[in-house]
Amino acid sequence: MDGLNMDYQLTLPAILKRAELLFGHKAIVSRLPDKSIQRYRYSDMAVRAKRLAVALKDLGVRPGDRVATLAWNHHQHLEAYFAIPAIGAVLHTMNLRFGHDDLAYAANDAEDRLLLVDASLLPLFEQLKSRVDFKHVIVMAGGDDVRPGFLGYEQLLASADEAGFQYQDIEEHQAAAMCYTSGTTGRPKGAVYSHRAMALHAMACAMAGSLAISESDTVLSAVPMFHINAWDLPFTAALAGANQVFPGSHLDPVSLLELLSTSRVTLTAGVPTVWLGVLQVLDKNPGVYDLSNLRAIVAGGSAAPLAMIKAFQERHGLRVVHAWGMTETTSITTLCNLPSDFRDAPVEDQYDYRAKQGTPLPFIEIRARGEAGLVPWDGQSMGELEVRGPWVVSRYHNAPPTDDRFTGDGWLKTGDIVTISARGCVNLCDRTKDLVKSGGEWISSVALENALMAHPAVAEAAVVAVPHPKWGERPFAAVVLKPDQIATEEELRRHLEPSFPKWWLPDAIEFIDEIPRTSAGKFRKSTLRERFHEYYVNAQPTVRTLLDV
Amino acid sequence: MDGLNMDYQLTLPAILKRAELLFGHKAIVSRLPDKSIQRYRYSDMAVRAKRLAVALKDLGVRPGDRVATLAWNHHQHLEAYFAIPAIGAVLHTMNLRFGHDDLAYAANDAEDRLLLVDASLLPLFEQLKSRVDFKHVIVMAGGDDVRPGFLGYEQLLASADEAGFQYQDIEEHQAAAMCYTSGTTGRPKGAVYSHRAMALHAMACAMAGSLAISESDTVLSAVPMFHINAWDLPFTAALAGANQVFPGSHLDPVSLLELLSTSRVTLTAGVPTVWLGVLQVLDKNPGVYDLSNLRAIVAGGSAAPLAMIKAFQERHGLRVVHAWGMTETTSITTLCNLPSDFRDAPVEDQYDYRAKQGTPLPFIEIRARGEAGLVPWDGQSMGELEVRGPWVVSRYHNAPPTDDRFTGDGWLKTGDIVTISARGCVNLCDRTKDLVKSGGEWISSVALENALMAHPAVAEAAVVAVPHPKWGERPFAAVVLKPDQIATEEELRRHLEPSFPKWWLPDAIEFIDEIPRTSAGKFRKSTLRERFHEYYVNAQPTVRTLLDV
Repeated sequence: MDGLNMDYQLTLPAILKRAELLFGHKAIVSRLPDKSIQRYRYSDMAVRAKRLAVALKDLGVRPGDRVATLAWNHHQHLEAYFAIPAIGAVLHTMNLRFGHDDLAYAANDAEDRLLLVDASLLPLFEQLKSRVDFKHVIVMAGGDDVRPGFLGYEQLLASADEAGFQYQDIEEHQAAAMCYTSGTTGRPKGAVYSHRAMALHAMACAMAGSLAISESDTVLSAVPMFHINAWDLPFTAALAGANQVFPGSHLDPVSLLELLSTSRVTLTAGVPTVWLGVLQVLDKNPGVYDLSNLRAIVAGGSAAPLAMIKAFQERHGLRVVHAWGMTETTSITTLCNLPSDFRDAPVEDQYDYRAKQGTPLPFIEIRARGEAGLVPWDGQSMGELEVRGPWVVSRYHNAPPTDDRFTGDGWLKTGDIVTISARGCVNLCDRTKDLVKSGGEWISSVALENALMAHPAVAEAAVVAVPHPKWGERPFAAVVLKPDQIATEEELRRHLEPSFPKWWLPDAIEFIDEIPRTSAGKFRKSTLRERFHEYYVNAQPTVRTLLDV
Repeated sequence: MDGLNMDYQLTLPAILKRAELLFGHKAIVSRLPDKSIQRYRYSDMAVRAKRLAVALKDLGVRPGDRVATLAWNHHQHLEAYFAIPAIGAVLHTMNLRFGHDDLAYAANDAEDRLLLVDASLLPLFEQLKSRVDFKHVIVMAGGDDVRPGFLGYEQLLASADEAGFQYQDIEEHQAAAMCYTSGTTGRPKGAVYSHRAMALHAMACAMAGSLAISESDTVLSAVPMFHINAWDLPFTAALAGANQVFPGSHLDPVSLLELLSTSRVTLTAGVPTVWLGVLQVLDKNPGVYDLSNLRAIVAGGSAAPLAMIKAFQERHGLRVVHAWGMTETTSITTLCNLPSDFRDAPVEDQYDYRAKQGTPLPFIEIRARGEAGLVPWDGQSMGELEVRGPWVVSRYHNAPPTDDRFTGDGWLKTGDIVTISARGCVNLCDRTKDLVKSGGEWISSVALENALMAHPAVAEAAVVAVPHPKWGERPFAAVVLKPDQIATEEELRRHLEPSFPKWWLPDAIEFIDEIPRTSAGKFRKSTLRERFHEYYVNAQPTVRTLLDV
């Protein structure tokens, strides 16, 4: 027996229509390339998005066609966010931090027909040009004098009539957008998001128990719009009727702080490295920035250091909220809000909780799998996080679901090693590839690194698994000391001893000058693993593991 | 091109699973028939709901079967709310305020196989018994000594093993629940709700811009669980992880106030007549009830008088939030939260806004149709409210969609006459059947009644349309004066004059002893219409309408 409710589809154009009808008066603020501020209203945005939709149709874009963007965070990009899915086409936000090979690969794999590109990013486009096949390239933001071979975004809008736009019937399972994973190994892989997935994600993020975004908010995403659709915040904000602020390409701490302050932002989001930079500027300039409206700094992409969460709270009265998600989960999947019964808990317990990645959003299910099967939710047992839910992908574009990323019963293997508490709070311990598997037991490289970095002489530390003839793998630590600081291997090992079981301690600690990094600023552990791959094998006669003692 | 997200279904058992896994420690408090308090946790509720599910399956309940309940608001009813849909069956909450004929009709129209009934409501069941055909009748709440021919709820649960329960695959479009409209004319009509409709409604109500229900809330529904599933609040609360408080059958103001206070309720909901009673008790007992945790009193079902909204706010610091919905919309459809730019507005402007029914929830669309087609959103033009969205029904059970309730393009005709403001705020003016259509123009009976009731001598006033030979219909007012108060027809007309166009004023005002009411306490205007039907025709030689002047 079926329910008799209407078969109303959850789509992104339904969000545009809502924003236009109910929140036409709310503000959208963008920072332009010259740092000047552009202001308009949702009603203006809707008119321009409709014009863009009409213009794209006139250029031959058909339902299902992919339209690429290569752009920073601004109002024109927002217009494209709504216009492209509104005509049934698919928004492919190209990640400008990819290498040229990967960018070209992604554009070809997605079969992008059209590109909307920031004028400032034309040099990047020029380097791809010979390897991609866009029917048209439309230049956004500052493209007033458009070179031959390109179309001007503003000219295109000026020539289109929004009256020619009609909301059309779109099925919610149709594709609305796609993003490619950065692919540290192999080629980038395309995650294709349905209207339904993005609409439900927006609803979930607006819930009071998650990000609680409402009409009274002003949202600034410091997550680039080319990175998982800025965590879908532009759609969540539009659904809720919140003001939106776009920082353009000006993502440096001072520019962000200026905008957070002058635009009275209430909620912002970004990766921890951005907030670490912001924290340093705040610390050095007490009282300069009025952030009294800012109720939440959402941090995701990698684990935010506890010290940073504390520093924002204690020195600046600002609340950092941990989020977890990945390209394969459309965006946010777990979120760490302090449960109500923690409010009277000792402050250190509160911080312990807030340093975790939190509980799943509604209709998201989680579990963790160790080598012997699913692990209990005890906050201790480590396993690879598996998730499922309406905004988790079931496979990649142009590829069948493979065993390495999807379970037989249809859950996504996230590649993150976690513990899960009795109440479903996820704590990120490691990436699967960084985990140390010693004698059948798992050791968290992240936990050891954090402990090493808490030593006053240590600037940075990376722990990797190194093959060991007896234990399979053993932890190995590479440490960078602070300038003018000295510490011995023994001293660091004694520093770790109180916090870990003996068999967790690194067998060797090497002092190096610098830890290799990825373009996104994360430790490139693969390089360390290669460099020290033979360490325990070669040194075997002299190095005994701690377990041999 | 389709999105590649998982085909994860939005269902009520997914909410049960979430509540069990993440919020097992949260509290569910019930008032029993003897007024004692029963307390347990979501984890206990989940175990018992699973046992009930197993027991119902053992009794032969199959997917799609309808299972009726005839019960007040308590934990056992909550268990049934989750258990019945969890096995793919359909929860039919029978409205015990229906007449016997309508109750029997509804049970037969739904083809209910089983009944769960409160022991205290067995006398009601006895009166229906000969006209209905339940395979089994299970006695809940106080059914310790179960009479022959009945099954005991607690005995049934004691004999079932929750380990036999497995979450099964349910498609979200399947029916989860059904309710019958009260049907003032004709037979009751069944609205059948899908899992999807109820799940999306729960998400929408938990959004920060709507009821903002989160884990830190404690929710008490003073809406009976037999009335549109207590506005689905039990599902919203479970999805959000809020504590829940159930008042049993004790819906009198003093009992409610005790429970609101002792259970530290943060959000409660009910019809305006309940809150009028509560207001009177509060006014008479200042400082007796600690309602400092109560952040919202949601009022719906009929328009809450502005005077009541003001009185709660000004005398008790309590916020009344207007909601609108009907059986045909699964539950809440519009909600009136003050927009952020009203916060600095004059307090009277705030109240004017708060007296309206508010803006549509996400993915709900509204429009209003007058006699010449859709009316503009100008806050002035009246039209019948039409709605569509994922939790609006498209037809009734066992009936095709009919022109009187559904438009050709698939919107529900609500039967409510409204204006819609430029920002989409709905203001309820009348029911279509109560509207006065004078010389081709519409007059709101509700507006005239509210103005009359604001006169110090008037206790109650009802305005109805009475046939008129020249104007088609003209307004007619029936007024009940307060004891020991006197007012003349001329005096009341002068009282109205400043607020309305001349042609809106009632041609006649009759003083009567009492306004007839329905069992739900609303004015029964049909009786007045019948009684005064010939008034203007018979009186024609002497009564001139104001328009003739």
